[in-house]
Amino acid sequence: MPAYRLDIGYDGSGFHGYARQPGQRTVQGELEAALETVCGVEVDTEAAGRTDAGVHARHQVVSFRLDGVQPERLARSLHKLLAPEIAVTRCIEVDETFSARFSATSRRYRYFVLNRPHIDPLRRHIAWHISEPLDVEAMGRAAAALVGEHDFASFCRKSEGRSTIRRILGASWKACSEDILQFEVQGTAFCHQMVRSIVALCVEVGRGRMDPETTTEVLEARDRGQARGAAPPHGLILWEVCYTKA
Amino acid sequence: MPAYRLDIGYDGSGFHGYARQPGQRTVQGELEAALETVCGVEVDTEAAGRTDAGVHARHQVVSFRLDGVQPERLARSLHKLLAPEIAVTRCIEVDETFSARFSATSRRYRYFVLNRPHIDPLRRHIAWHISEPLDVEAMGRAAAALVGEHDFASFCRKSEGRSTIRRILGASWKACSEDILQFEVQGTAFCHQMVRSIVALCVEVGRGRMDPETTTEVLEARDRGQARGAAPPHGLILWEVCYTKA
Repeated sequence: MPAYRLDIGYDGSGFHGYARQPGQRTVQGELEAALETVCGVEVDTEAAGRTDAGVHARHQVVSFRLDGVQPERLARSLHKLLAPEIAVTRCIEVDETFSARFSATSRRYRYFVLNRPHIDPLRRHIAWHISEPLDVEAMGRAAAALVGEHDFASFCRKSEGRSTIRRILGASWKACSEDILQFEVQGTAFCHQMVRSIVALCVEVGRGRMDPETTTEVLEARDRGQARGAAPPHGLILWEVCYTKA
Repeated sequence: MPAYRLDIGYDGSGFHGYARQPGQRTVQGELEAALETVCGVEVDTEAAGRTDAGVHARHQVVSFRLDGVQPERLARSLHKLLAPEIAVTRCIEVDETFSARFSATSRRYRYFVLNRPHIDPLRRHIAWHISEPLDVEAMGRAAAALVGEHDFASFCRKSEGRSTIRRILGASWKACSEDILQFEVQGTAFCHQMVRSIVALCVEVGRGRMDPETTTEVLEARDRGQARGAAPPHGLILWEVCYTKA
């Protein structure tokens, strides 16, 4: 059966995460319901990143198999049903071996911190507000210590029997406007809550409560209890999914 | 009675505009209800700009008179009641002659256009999405023609007997990221729907449907029918209110 790749983006605020869950409004649930409406059959989909409740995606990739599809037309029909919370930007036919999840070579996430005394009503859904000044240079050093292949057990919500070894290709913090700090991390894959756990640790460092060098100790402990919890979901955006071939 | 100045910001998405209206959820309505809760008396307030339904404010100024107020404490109490949709950033005692509306020397607004083929679910409440490419240089010329003191009747929703003569101190368009165009306009005051009507005209110019020089003709016609309607409210933000003394 021919395989298709769908590129989407969404505002995660109104969803209980990406992954389908009975009785909950999820991105996958809405997307598969729309596919069924348009195609008249149930369609199983696979996604590059299963984002948590409240987490957004600028770019998420979904794959599925289906007969008799006109991809451009399907993209338009799905978009009509799913906008404006979910945007369907394209649908293309791909090689039968393509999997949105397993063919992805890396994922890039961004996390935004609004760092100023007062909240901003207009950015409350897309940035974590922290009123104390943060030392972005120290946060950068804390993040850099995580680059490479490591066992990230300290930064992962446990999943029985699953490996927590991951490879981070790059991790950096920068001040990208007068009051926004941006964390960008790229890795081959991430385990559950990994990005948000890294952000929470970096923010502790930025507050001066931890030394940037402690990151290595926390990493080497391989103990979730050594981390600093998880940053709130609404500051996190799945920014881009990379494949060797588009 | 002592006079106070309150600085606030809000996400206009969930409100039927700033000004109090019976049976509608408005910013002024919420604010005055919170003031009554905290102070135990009805308080009449005055604001620098009465923004329309869906319009946001990064910075709005409100004034009122009241006895026995501790301004810093009041700001904190109001903030607790009104956040996160409305942020109360400060409250200070001001000269008795101060009026948020009449003491303001100018208002600055920004309007954001998301100019790219696809919608962005995360920015759908803060920018007008236009998929066709826009000529930002031509839009800048159209806007520049409006600077100065003029009768803006073509750009104002009629209000019986009210003057439509206003003075624009500056008006410019710029591309401020790969897909965002920003309009900034500063004026001593604006009449109803004036900024959004100017934006709608500029966008017509940007689309190539009108010559930038036509702006002057539209202005001189003093006829609402000559304009190009009003741009949607959600792209507009009251950015700053200026006073000679803070």
